[in-house]
Amino acid sequence: MAEKMTPRILPGFMELLPPEQILFNSMYDTIRRNYEKFGFLPLDTPTIELSEVLLAKAGGETEKQIYRFEKGDNDLSLRFDLTVPLARYVAQHSQELAFPFKRYQMSKVFRGERPQKGRFREFYQCDIDVIGDEKLDLIYDAEMPAVIYNVFRELNIGKFTIKLNNRKILSGFFESLNLSDRVTDILRTIDKFDKIGAQKMRAELISEGIPEADADKILSFITISGSADEKIASLNRLGIDNALFCEGVDELAKVVGYMRSYGIDDAYFNIELTIARGLDYYTGTVYETNLDDYPALGSVCSGGRYDNLTAYYTDRKLPGIGISIGLTRLFSQLLAAGIISADKKSLVKVLVVPTDLEKMNACLKAARFFRNEDIPCDVYSLDKGLKQKMKYAGRLAVPFVALIGDDELRDGKVALKNMQSGEQTVVTVAEAAEIMKK
Amino acid sequence: MAEKMTPRILPGFMELLPPEQILFNSMYDTIRRNYEKFGFLPLDTPTIELSEVLLAKAGGETEKQIYRFEKGDNDLSLRFDLTVPLARYVAQHSQELAFPFKRYQMSKVFRGERPQKGRFREFYQCDIDVIGDEKLDLIYDAEMPAVIYNVFRELNIGKFTIKLNNRKILSGFFESLNLSDRVTDILRTIDKFDKIGAQKMRAELISEGIPEADADKILSFITISGSADEKIASLNRLGIDNALFCEGVDELAKVVGYMRSYGIDDAYFNIELTIARGLDYYTGTVYETNLDDYPALGSVCSGGRYDNLTAYYTDRKLPGIGISIGLTRLFSQLLAAGIISADKKSLVKVLVVPTDLEKMNACLKAARFFRNEDIPCDVYSLDKGLKQKMKYAGRLAVPFVALIGDDELRDGKVALKNMQSGEQTVVTVAEAAEIMKK
Repeated sequence: MAEKMTPRILPGFMELLPPEQILFNSMYDTIRRNYEKFGFLPLDTPTIELSEVLLAKAGGETEKQIYRFEKGDNDLSLRFDLTVPLARYVAQHSQELAFPFKRYQMSKVFRGERPQKGRFREFYQCDIDVIGDEKLDLIYDAEMPAVIYNVFRELNIGKFTIKLNNRKILSGFFESLNLSDRVTDILRTIDKFDKIGAQKMRAELISEGIPEADADKILSFITISGSADEKIASLNRLGIDNALFCEGVDELAKVVGYMRSYGIDDAYFNIELTIARGLDYYTGTVYETNLDDYPALGSVCSGGRYDNLTAYYTDRKLPGIGISIGLTRLFSQLLAAGIISADKKSLVKVLVVPTDLEKMNACLKAARFFRNEDIPCDVYSLDKGLKQKMKYAGRLAVPFVALIGDDELRDGKVALKNMQSGEQTVVTVAEAAEIMKK
Repeated sequence: MAEKMTPRILPGFMELLPPEQILFNSMYDTIRRNYEKFGFLPLDTPTIELSEVLLAKAGGETEKQIYRFEKGDNDLSLRFDLTVPLARYVAQHSQELAFPFKRYQMSKVFRGERPQKGRFREFYQCDIDVIGDEKLDLIYDAEMPAVIYNVFRELNIGKFTIKLNNRKILSGFFESLNLSDRVTDILRTIDKFDKIGAQKMRAELISEGIPEADADKILSFITISGSADEKIASLNRLGIDNALFCEGVDELAKVVGYMRSYGIDDAYFNIELTIARGLDYYTGTVYETNLDDYPALGSVCSGGRYDNLTAYYTDRKLPGIGISIGLTRLFSQLLAAGIISADKKSLVKVLVVPTDLEKMNACLKAARFFRNEDIPCDVYSLDKGLKQKMKYAGRLAVPFVALIGDDELRDGKVALKNMQSGEQTVVTVAEAAEIMKK
């Protein structure tokens, strides 16, 4: 064959070598296991949907980023998140689902934005949402952080803080200032608090036409400090006579109470009145999650409550609450920061090695025994010297090697070597399996 | 909001309700677990690749089916199989991989063909391949059926037969008839043997210009019958003086021997000299797998050995062998034929139910205990009557309900009901966990 095509992939797409893929999968599996432990049902929507269905709501930035194309007579798009497909799914199957409907989906989504550090065009989102019929209990506002708590504890990537807030508090507060018609603008500005700081935020508010006195009130409101309980007490002490505000504070207090019943350690969460979340559809509790030692990573798990998820598809009122972990981005950041490392180079627990190919059948039988005992296992097949065989085992970092030579073949045994301690014992395959299971 | 968009998906795309999705996932997990048990490494290539890279080889039917589109300056395509991305990956990373490189990938692929019964435009392929450096031992020709054997035994969908053949036997046989320049044509015709039968196949061969005497030899050759050993003996008795033929028979005999060492029961495989596999790149052992009781399903797992996988990307010789399970199609066929059924409506083992919302905190604490014991668990949150709560539990078909009422709250216990037997006992949460684990 004459010309070769250079093998390569597009920038902004993640593809891993096996050790990194093993590590990625172990994180994926941890998240999935915890989602399932909380009773979330699996969902797998199509990657490709009809553009008119998928883009019923989208606009602006989102629309520009979408991978959209025609095939035959169809105008198609790749999903750009898992929330719109969920809304479509729930509206489409509302008669067949039991509510509250709790589902998880952990799939790739696609956004054709300009690739930059830590941004991907194709990435995994790991979402859970609970959808209620007409209403949805506040219990679920506490269940979201409970799941986050369990997931991130098990991911073992250091201390983290779940920050929560309630949009009603913010909206009610602005109502009390007669700034209701400015709420969306102000929330957008407040959202930048962490990035630009108090003074710049105040200046920006004023430049947007907020009276100085109100800008000061806003500033003192969102900088209320202390523990969750202290913040709730401070909010109540403000004496703001606004129904929405009071409802928000009341909800927040209840959610914090439930969170403790869910077993979330107080050290792992707090109220953060500056959190509004950019998206317009959040209407109640909102969350962000930060790794305490790596604030630069930003929020690693966010979400909130929304009242109008399926509004574009149905008149039925189906409120929901959900969170999302952007796993591809999180993984790549954790790896780059050295918080995780890809030490495991193989899923195999034992490599069975024949001294020469005459021992191959005995090796295959030993391997079969190990696999039947649920021990992942591989057999070395190349006709090379023992040194090279052990080098291969070292390269894959397998915990054990089971060697079969003349003596072992004769006695029906294996020489089992613990690759970490260097210890070697000649035992039957059954004994070897027992040793490895310990 | 005024107009509603009808929520719907495209024809030819599979989307499941939760019970079916749970069943699908359990099959997916079974396949993955077995792939990993045999030492295959995970791989996850991008869904979107550069068209010129992905289509370096493709042409004809494949090219027409591809979802191809432009974004910015890039000409992009969705992957249409997992083999081309593997070839690209191995060529791209050959310096970083340990050979033999064993990888599995279980991902969606995309083919925009006209949808018909049992055909999908977006479907999961579950592939394993072993890629060697320069050469690859015959051990792996036996490992493929060993994995198939373990997967399909565990899937528990009835008796199956792995059919194997070796393309060298066919090619050598045709060489001996001086029909080498016709091999590809003849193999294509032979491939139809199962569908059209002996006489039509003979007629077709003759109409293609094969002399009658040779057509008869071909027919008697491919209808050799008996067990695997008997067929190998018959092939040897033919006395065909052709090196390729003899090599093929020798390989087949060795592979059968290794398959027995791998523990494959003779009742689950046989040689099938009619199998050629349509694809042009298979060069040695080839496989198909049929469910004995459901021949209409066709082959549920196929593959084979190829010498030139990465030829479009590199001069390095990287031979390989692989098999593929088309899970989406298999699942939909099994479900339609009633071979599998979606009985499990939830992943939850126990639903914790408060008699009224005052008991909610106690319920959350019980649920937390169960989850810490790795028991998937959910809490009923709606303010409804007990009858409706039990109806919900029945609808989700949860195995256990843990009820907390006044007495249980006072005594720190739960009333644990086995939903199958109807048996109910009042026990501590720790005791309840023990009962459910049994």
